[in-house]
Formats: sequence, structure tokens, C-alpha cells
Amino acid sequence: MKIPPVKGTRDFYPQEMAVRNWIIDGWKRVSVRNGFEEYDAPIFEYLKMFQIKSGDEIVEQLFSLTDRGGRELALRPEITPSLARMVNQRINSLPRPIKWFSVPRLFRAERPQKGRLREFFQWNVDIIGVDDVLADAEVIFCALDYLREVGLGRDDVVVKISSRQMLAALLRSVGVARSELEELYAVLDKRNKLPDDAFEEMLAEKIADEGKRRKVIDLMSVESIEQINELLELDETAQESVNELERLFELLGVMGVAEYCEFDIGIVRGLAYYTGIVYEIYDKASELRAIGGGGRYDDLLKQFGGPAIPATGFGIGDCVLAILLEDKGLLERQLPSRKLDYFVACVDKSYRQAAVELTMKLRSAGWTAGFSYKTAKLSKQLKEASDQKAKKCIIIGDEFKNRQLVVKDMATGEQETVDYDKFFSGLESKAR
Amino acid sequence: MKIPPVKGTRDFYPQEMAVRNWIIDGWKRVSVRNGFEEYDAPIFEYLKMFQIKSGDEIVEQLFSLTDRGGRELALRPEITPSLARMVNQRINSLPRPIKWFSVPRLFRAERPQKGRLREFFQWNVDIIGVDDVLADAEVIFCALDYLREVGLGRDDVVVKISSRQMLAALLRSVGVARSELEELYAVLDKRNKLPDDAFEEMLAEKIADEGKRRKVIDLMSVESIEQINELLELDETAQESVNELERLFELLGVMGVAEYCEFDIGIVRGLAYYTGIVYEIYDKASELRAIGGGGRYDDLLKQFGGPAIPATGFGIGDCVLAILLEDKGLLERQLPSRKLDYFVACVDKSYRQAAVELTMKLRSAGWTAGFSYKTAKLSKQLKEASDQKAKKCIIIGDEFKNRQLVVKDMATGEQETVDYDKFFSGLESKAR
Repeated sequence: MKIPPVKGTRDFYPQEMAVRNWIIDGWKRVSVRNGFEEYDAPIFEYLKMFQIKSGDEIVEQLFSLTDRGGRELALRPEITPSLARMVNQRINSLPRPIKWFSVPRLFRAERPQKGRLREFFQWNVDIIGVDDVLADAEVIFCALDYLREVGLGRDDVVVKISSRQMLAALLRSVGVARSELEELYAVLDKRNKLPDDAFEEMLAEKIADEGKRRKVIDLMSVESIEQINELLELDETAQESVNELERLFELLGVMGVAEYCEFDIGIVRGLAYYTGIVYEIYDKASELRAIGGGGRYDDLLKQFGGPAIPATGFGIGDCVLAILLEDKGLLERQLPSRKLDYFVACVDKSYRQAAVELTMKLRSAGWTAGFSYKTAKLSKQLKEASDQKAKKCIIIGDEFKNRQLVVKDMATGEQETVDYDKFFSGLESKAR
Repeated sequence: MKIPPVKGTRDFYPQEMAVRNWIIDGWKRVSVRNGFEEYDAPIFEYLKMFQIKSGDEIVEQLFSLTDRGGRELALRPEITPSLARMVNQRINSLPRPIKWFSVPRLFRAERPQKGRLREFFQWNVDIIGVDDVLADAEVIFCALDYLREVGLGRDDVVVKISSRQMLAALLRSVGVARSELEELYAVLDKRNKLPDDAFEEMLAEKIADEGKRRKVIDLMSVESIEQINELLELDETAQESVNELERLFELLGVMGVAEYCEFDIGIVRGLAYYTGIVYEIYDKASELRAIGGGGRYDDLLKQFGGPAIPATGFGIGDCVLAILLEDKGLLERQLPSRKLDYFVACVDKSYRQAAVELTMKLRSAGWTAGFSYKTAKLSKQLKEASDQKAKKCIIIGDEFKNRQLVVKDMATGEQETVDYDKFFSGLESKAR
């Protein structure tokens, strides 16, 4: 009986697994050096947890299941609700600021498309307990620290930044009611992703009045922070959020990443819970979906039954990132290749057992070691050693009767005969 | 609104995550040095895939879900069926032997108990394409290579080994029909786990004839391979499998792990697909459930629509292992502690921006670096540096006006004033 994998999921053969590991190891290494600690939550949670404050889009795409006890559960489509739950559970004992990261496997029951699968990995980095925009700058720096490390330059990626708080103030100033905001965000979020006429049609469904609609469209065409200051009369909240954006760009400059960042009023974010700075990371050519995005979500912990604590963070998925790295030739160039420290060969079957013994001794001492399952000729075994990129090949032959081994350097081809015990005493346990 | 986590799942706060990472990193390191390549499969597969040849126990415990297209899916309770599917998909292009490992997250919808949760991690190591018992020995060695590396000695753990093929031959010799075997395995698998009378009661449900039942019980009381040779007249298959077991023990001796291994006819394994050597790994005191287990499954790939290819492998879960490591004091002793390479402090607010800039420069160069979000007194910042186990603390003060920094060694307390540019040119990018 032959059964296929489920559409929108991936099989990770060793080659694909090496890519996944290389990407995730990089995420982890950069998170740690930026001072973040790793956490994780269960793959499934109560369904209602995801319904509290995620965007409608996410809730529609949940994989839900019912357990034997009749509990309604769902596979996590994002980890932020679990993060809010976990932080709230220990809110009194966790020292702040909480600087945490995670690499959750996430699930969305949507139609698979390029860069968008039903099962994927996402790098999440969050700072909880700091309302200073310095925290927003630090998480953006962290994302860029990774992207720069893997070789993506300012001609490859861009962080487009705006502010929900500012947008809300500006929308209210052109006559949008507070109660209309949330639904409007979902439409405005589509502006950069749809043709103008399709966007305006969607907008018309939310704002019937043409004059008001025109004002919103004009607002969404603003191209710089200065232009906002020039064009519009700002109320106190709007001015505050404009100042905050300006300070963010200043800090990103101090951090050395300003050239990767630009203001874009069209960045709104689909998720309902953002409250301040929001941003999305794109390939500079705008050929792909967003690589990632994030922002400030100061009300979320409270909505999950905790106290009001400011929070900010981002998520970067593995699918679009991998496509971009592949397109730029950065994957192939940097993927570490598999290597053996030692391959243990034997001249004939009678030394097979000795080869097995030696291989296991090397492994126990921490070295990567292999032997051949085929009892082939020595030349074939040496070919196998070379195929497996062995640095050294140990050949067990008649010298073994005098407890001696032949050690061949696979790079230089040089061979030397060494005493068995000396070889092992000289072979310090590999540092881990 | 406060929502709890689902029963039987775990939240991984940074402390628990550090344990999980330490265990999994060890599994991966040992797998690689034993010559295995990592793979993974999706978290969910078609439900029917798990119904093909797993044990009834596993099928009853599936978390199943239906997607929007009405497809019946299930969260994977084990990865071996996915492995069989993946290998079959590329059977003509994969070089053999296939030596693969994986660390899947698995799910079983059962009542949570000590060492048995509804969501867990399992280390899987398999060799496909080798029918020599040497492959069984190599995977057992690999499991022990890890257990020994984390400090578990022969007084702590034991691998109990038997053979399904031998048991089948012996059972047939006392009158059990071939068709009765599969159901009987599930009962015999319980022998070591139940009181004698409960076991005999279960057995009576399968074997009504008392004489035959007595013979089966006597057979299951055999204590050594020699005893089998002495007590029973062996047919050819039985003799072959006895010889194979003897060769396995010999090889485990050659590999240097014989003292961890013993014969136990009571090891049957619950899963239906095992065909030859089977084993389970226990804590020596027998206080916990099995740490892991495995065996040969030569028919599985064929049952999944592929050719007949021999295969052998094991699985070790993280729950029982973590309990044992904790009990033996091996966790606390070995867990790596969090460390900072540099903490950047400043004498007052006016140098805050310089501290931020310096921190990010250090991180960009690959160093783990931190600064304080609180604009506190220097003494408090130094306390924070010490709490975060910083190796060095950079203090930015009035010397900064002359582009100089104070670098304090946190271990010795020594301080030196260094030139800013010299400091950075001397600071090579950290090797990754």
C-alpha cells in the first residue's frame, strides 16, 4: 500500500534537513548572542486560546481537533498566544525584561503556495516588560543581525516600518471611528499586496463615503515621516507616535542597521493585537511574500488574563527565507558539508572485527568514524572513505598482527604506520 | 481570560528548554559521529498510514483530525511509518545502506502518567538495507554510546535483548499456530510489566488449553540462550535465530558494550512490525518504564508498497530518560550554564547610546553581549553583568571622550583602559 505525504507538508530528506538545521542553528546562535533565552510551548493548545486576539485570517486557517475527552484543541498557527499564556502563568517570578526566543513548528490549514506551506518553522524573538522603543530597535537589530550574517545585504532585504498607533491617530483625524479601525486594518494591510483598483474596491466595502475614502487613500500614499509632519495637523497621540518612529530610526542608525530600514505607511500587519511600531521584512526586489514581520503588542498579556505589560517582537518563517537564500546562491555556498574524522578500512575479511572494534573506540572518544558494511576490496573501501569526505583513513592489515595500524591522510595521501596503543593514547577525547 | 495548557503537554520555560536542548543536542552529536544522517517528516500524515502495521495500542492512541478537504489525518505517534514512506518514495536513488536518524516530536492521546506524556520527543536511529546482525549491533552501540556519554554506567542502565523470530519458532514448537502469534505478542509483551497472575489471566484469554499455556509460560521463564539450547529441540529457524542472537552478543562485546546487554526472552515489543532481534532499554533498578527499545523490521517497507528491504532501528523517548538523568544527578551537573562574553555598562545616561552602539558591534562580530535596559547606577549594572555571568564588562565613562573604554575582567576584577579602535581591531570576529 502506497500512501503519499499530505499536501502542503514537507519531507526532510538529509539534504533538506541540512538546510533546515543550518537555518535554525543560525537563528538560535544569533538569538543567544543578542541575549535571548529559548522557550517553547506545546504543538496544540485549547482552540479558544487562538480565538482570543489573533487576526480572523489565522483563526479561519486553524487545524482543529477534538481529543477523547471532547476537548476542542488546535495546532498552533503562531506561538505568541502561548507566549502570553506562559508569561502570565509566572508573571510574578519571571525577572524582567523577559528576552525570549523560540523556533516553533507552526500549522495553517490554507492552500499551499510558493513560500506558504501548511507546516513551517518560524523564528520568534520577543522582549516583554520594556515600553521604550529601544526594545523595538533591539529586536529589529536581532533580525538583521541574522540576515546580515547569512550574507543578505541592503540590496537584498529591507525592513519596512510604520506605527499602528500613528495610523490610528491619522485615520481618526480623517473621520474614521475607533470602532471601525480593526476591520479597516485588515483591508489596509492588503494595500501593498493588491492592485490599486482591487484595493480600492475592498476599501469601498468598509468606507462607503467617497470623500472619506479619498482621504484614507491619500493618507496611505504618504511616503515619508516628514511628509506626515508637513501635510497633516497632528493631534498629541499622532505626534507622540511620529516622534517614536523618528527615535526608532535614530536608534537603528546607532545600531548600524539604518540602511536596511525604511518608513512605509502601508505596513499595517494582519494580526489584531499590534498596538504600536509594526514592520515587515521583504526581499528588496519585492518578488516574494514577506520574509517576516512584527511589532509592539502592549495589550496582549492583559487580554490573556494577565497584567498590562508592554511587549514587542517579530516572527520570520523558514519558507520565504529559504527561497531567497537559494535565489541569492547563499545556501549552497554556506551549507556545511558532511565530514568523517576517520574511516576504518581493512585489507580483508579477517580484520573486519578489528575494524568494527576500532571504529566504535573512535566514536566513544567523540570522533566521527565509519566503516564499510560491504566486505569489499581495499580500493573500494578507500573510495567509500573518499566519498564520505573522511579526513583520515585507518587501514587494518597484516601490521595489525604486531598491533600496528596504517593511518592515511586523505588530503595529502601520506601514510604512516603507527603503534595501536600509541595511536589511542595520542588521540585525546574530542572536545565537545 | 485565562486558559491553561492542555493536560499531558509541557511548557518549556528557558530552564526546561535548556534540558530539552541538552538532551537533543547529545542525541544529534552521537548520531552524527556514528555515521547517521538526520531526516524528518511532517507532524501529521494520512490517518490510514498509521493503521497499516503499527500495534493496536498505538492506533487507539492517535490524535486524529480532518482538514478542510475532508482528508482524515493524524498526528504522528511514531516516525517509522513516515520513514518507510520516505525511503520507498526514493528507493531507487538512495545509496544503501541508509543510515538515518531523527528526533521527531510525537503525540499519543493517552492518559498522562509518570514518564508518559501526550506530547514528547523520541530519538530514532535506523539502518535500512543491511540484513547482517552487525547493523543491529551498531544501532544498539549507538544508543549506548549516548547513554555512556551522559554518564549512565552499567549499574544504571541495561539493554534487554531477545528475538521475535526465535520466539515465533519456539512458540510454534509448543503448538501455537502462526496465525495466533501477532495477538499473543501483545500479551507476552506485558509479562515483565504485570504481576504473574494478571499475566496468566490475560494469557488464558488467548490460549484456552492449559497444557499449551503451561508450555508457553515455561518457555517465557527461560533465563539464558544456553538454557534454550539445552531445554528445547530447535528446528532450523529457531537454531538460526539462536545463532544470530549469539553473534549479536559477540559483536556487542567487540564493540565494548557487552556489560550493558543481557538476554531476556520476555522482551517482545508491542509493535506488530518487528521480525527479528528486539530489545528494550531499562534503568537497572527497574523503577521506571522502558527508556527506549527497538528491533529489526524486515517486512515494513514492503508493507508500505516498497520492495523487501531489511531494516533495524530503535527509539528512545525524552521523558523517562530525563527522569533517570535527574534521579542520578546527571542533569544538574552537566547542563551548560548561560554566559555572556561582554556586558556593556555606562557611568551615566549620556553614554547610553554609546553602550547600545558598542553592544550591537560586539554582537555583529559574533560575541554574546548585553546591556542594561534600566538606566541604573554603575554598581547596579555591574551586578547585572555578574548575574548574567559576563566574562568581561566594558564600562563607558568619561574616558570615552578620548575614545577609550574601560574593560573589566569579571573573574579577576582587573580593569584596563583601552583605545576604542584598538579594542575593535584586536577583537577578531568570533569563530563560528
